[in-house]
Amino acid sequence: MTINRQILLVSRPKGEATLDNFHLAAPELPELGDGQVLVRNFYLSLDPYMRGRMNDTKSYAPPQPLDAVMVGATVGEVIESRHPDWQPGDAVTAMFGWQEYGISDGTNLRRVDAVRVPMSVYLGAAGMPGVTAWYGLNKIIAPKAGQTVAVSAASGAVGSVVGQLAKRMGCRVVGIAGGPQKCAYVTETLGFDACVDYKAGNLYEALRAAAPDGIDGYFENVGGAVFDAVLGNINAHSRIALCGMIAGYDGQPAPLKYPALLLTNRVKLEGFIVTEHLDIWPQALTELTDAIAAGELHYRETMTQGLESAPAAFLGLLKGENFGKQIVRLV
Amino acid sequence: MTINRQILLVSRPKGEATLDNFHLAAPELPELGDGQVLVRNFYLSLDPYMRGRMNDTKSYAPPQPLDAVMVGATVGEVIESRHPDWQPGDAVTAMFGWQEYGISDGTNLRRVDAVRVPMSVYLGAAGMPGVTAWYGLNKIIAPKAGQTVAVSAASGAVGSVVGQLAKRMGCRVVGIAGGPQKCAYVTETLGFDACVDYKAGNLYEALRAAAPDGIDGYFENVGGAVFDAVLGNINAHSRIALCGMIAGYDGQPAPLKYPALLLTNRVKLEGFIVTEHLDIWPQALTELTDAIAAGELHYRETMTQGLESAPAAFLGLLKGENFGKQIVRLV
Repeated sequence: MTINRQILLVSRPKGEATLDNFHLAAPELPELGDGQVLVRNFYLSLDPYMRGRMNDTKSYAPPQPLDAVMVGATVGEVIESRHPDWQPGDAVTAMFGWQEYGISDGTNLRRVDAVRVPMSVYLGAAGMPGVTAWYGLNKIIAPKAGQTVAVSAASGAVGSVVGQLAKRMGCRVVGIAGGPQKCAYVTETLGFDACVDYKAGNLYEALRAAAPDGIDGYFENVGGAVFDAVLGNINAHSRIALCGMIAGYDGQPAPLKYPALLLTNRVKLEGFIVTEHLDIWPQALTELTDAIAAGELHYRETMTQGLESAPAAFLGLLKGENFGKQIVRLV
Repeated sequence: MTINRQILLVSRPKGEATLDNFHLAAPELPELGDGQVLVRNFYLSLDPYMRGRMNDTKSYAPPQPLDAVMVGATVGEVIESRHPDWQPGDAVTAMFGWQEYGISDGTNLRRVDAVRVPMSVYLGAAGMPGVTAWYGLNKIIAPKAGQTVAVSAASGAVGSVVGQLAKRMGCRVVGIAGGPQKCAYVTETLGFDACVDYKAGNLYEALRAAAPDGIDGYFENVGGAVFDAVLGNINAHSRIALCGMIAGYDGQPAPLKYPALLLTNRVKLEGFIVTEHLDIWPQALTELTDAIAAGELHYRETMTQGLESAPAAFLGLLKGENFGKQIVRLV
């Protein structure tokens, strides 16, 4: 018998999420039924959106049920198949959640080419985070060459792709990240024109110096004080893609101090969830995977080892302790 | 010699605007030059945007200069002309500001039909406020029949047109206004489906009752607590036309408490200034004037008498003391 270790959500956070909210279970894997596929998950993705699912509040997706396996994207290998379309050895992405194995009838499995691009990258730049960056930049911000694009959480899975794609479009790109190490990575490795350290204070003035012509497009991943500082530097007729507001995910609302700036600058702001725009995924994934395979799109991963490391790694992600895409290696 | 009384801005408000910020001057009218037109202003428009101009801060328009005539729209009659295109007796709108006469070389004068629609209405429903309503509703909110549209300052010059146009599009329309008298006007005369009195407390719950299916489109004129309450009732994929934020015009910022709701509901929000969309004015003015002339679009005016009444009337407008379009009669 095979044991399938899983992380369950067993209580909802009151304020900050804690390790107590999670529980490691170790049930046996059931027998594979007819038409089913068994996948060994190699990597689990940890993403900020998961924090929202832990709350029992109205949002774009139903809350994560209690005592069930935490939601999440995985990539792994088919190890047994009773389905004609899938063979052992197939590399696949899925949404099996925080567990070591997954069983599927084939729906929601996607075959990936693990030779061209490393498997784990399908959870980052060649997966949902990359497509998120692509959508917000191309479909909401739509910058012209020469315009200035800013992005928060710039060294992260989404932000790093936003900035690199904007550079390819001929923009001046300003990142916002936490700490000198992340900022150095953003300018030196990712090739952004400037990076502002939000932990260094004087965020407004630092942004003003980094974006002397003002900000024409902003990709928002964090909210709170960062959003305020960007809005103070925003240009007339700018566009804001609202992708994440991690600053408020622990339940303390992160107010926007001067919403009137949205009016005086005639800003177009749009909140979006990339899974509602499935029509653009094929094009986005092709472009991203091509660029990664060609070595033209950099990414960075923070990897922890073993399913049991997932809760602590996730709490660290919410505090910005990761550096690049946060992944749990399960094998 | 003719005296042309004028109201000048002589100091900038520190916080709330006061009567001291204004000064009544009484210079003589200069002789009319070749190619010039002299207009006697019959009505002066008072609008919330003027408060923004009184500040010396970056905005979409340069600040109102000190010791100059306050900016503003006027409607009146040509009384002398040395310009071949304009004859005494022509009814015209212009931006002559807070004064009894205006001199122009013909640019920025627009002829109006004072028989079909009363002259003062060209400052309201058949003028800039009406076009503002038309643009935000048609070009940003773009509601479908059956959807719920909410509008703040619902009895005002802009809000009253927004709601009536939305009713003509088959929407459920919810107004927000200050006090039972305004609310009664909004539902009984303007024909909105419901009106919520923001002064009565429990704004969030009252909106929930008035919009049981949630709000699909919101036309924002006020900001502050009203905006917060609406956002709490906003539906997924709703649109917000950001037209005014009078709650913050006196310099105290009116923060937005839960901006994350823009993300979780995938809201499209757009700030706009109607004078940047001149292409739609002819269509909008034709539709509005036709509906007014046909008696299908109601409007209400608060009129004070004499140029000297303008500063106090304007301060009252900022506090919501007017009821409908605020106008100063100059003759």
